[in-house]
Amino acid sequence: MTLPATVYPLTGPLRQDGRMLVVHVHVHVRPERTEEFLAATVMNARASLAEPGVLRFDVITDDADPAHVVLTEVYRDDDAATAHKETPHYAIWRDTVADMMARPRESAKFSAVFPATDGGWASRPQ
Amino acid sequence: MTLPATVYPLTGPLRQDGRMLVVHVHVHVRPERTEEFLAATVMNARASLAEPGVLRFDVITDDADPAHVVLTEVYRDDDAATAHKETPHYAIWRDTVADMMARPRESAKFSAVFPATDGGWASRPQ
Repeated sequence: MTLPATVYPLTGPLRQDGRMLVVHVHVHVRPERTEEFLAATVMNARASLAEPGVLRFDVITDDADPAHVVLTEVYRDDDAATAHKETPHYAIWRDTVADMMARPRESAKFSAVFPATDGGWASRPQ
Repeated sequence: MTLPATVYPLTGPLRQDGRMLVVHVHVHVRPERTEEFLAATVMNARASLAEPGVLRFDVITDDADPAHVVLTEVYRDDDAATAHKETPHYAIWRDTVADMMARPRESAKFSAVFPATDGGWASRPQ
């Protein structure tokens, strides 16, 4: 089956400009440290969203394994991702959670397709 | 190491109310069908964001494997997730992409920790 163009007319760019960076960080926490880990991570998320190059910093837990925490970090560009790693709140978080993790965290990098603009990705921290 | 409460004071609820539903859908597309798949998926994402119970509908591609597409769907509650599956745009998308996938798609369900309110998750489609 080919794509019915009349059903799916594309009116804008199909992708972001390619500068934006979406990172999923998978953390497997020692189960008994999960609440502490989440508390430290929420504080880091709030501080990170105040960085000019950070569009999102979501924290979610896997319903199948609540000790599996995923951070979704969205940066305006590579420089913003580098700048994040140089902030005091990142350093505090990294050191605070170091012994709460059951194993080293893993990350995967993605490119944004939709929303198609930075504005569509901007989170409103609350 | 215990959590230094003075460094990480929690001023709000640590978690969402538990009603919100975050779903990651992993799709492995036949590589030669990737553009068609993304076109159909972006149209579905835009239509889905117009549903009252859909807070986000992101589309991203894995930098390590561009034929690996991840949809991040955020629903206000279970009813909203059910309602999404009953929309015409979902049915069209499902049927359109059926033979573009290399294998059945897989999904994982998550609970929101941060942002702590529905408003913090709301996407502004563009």
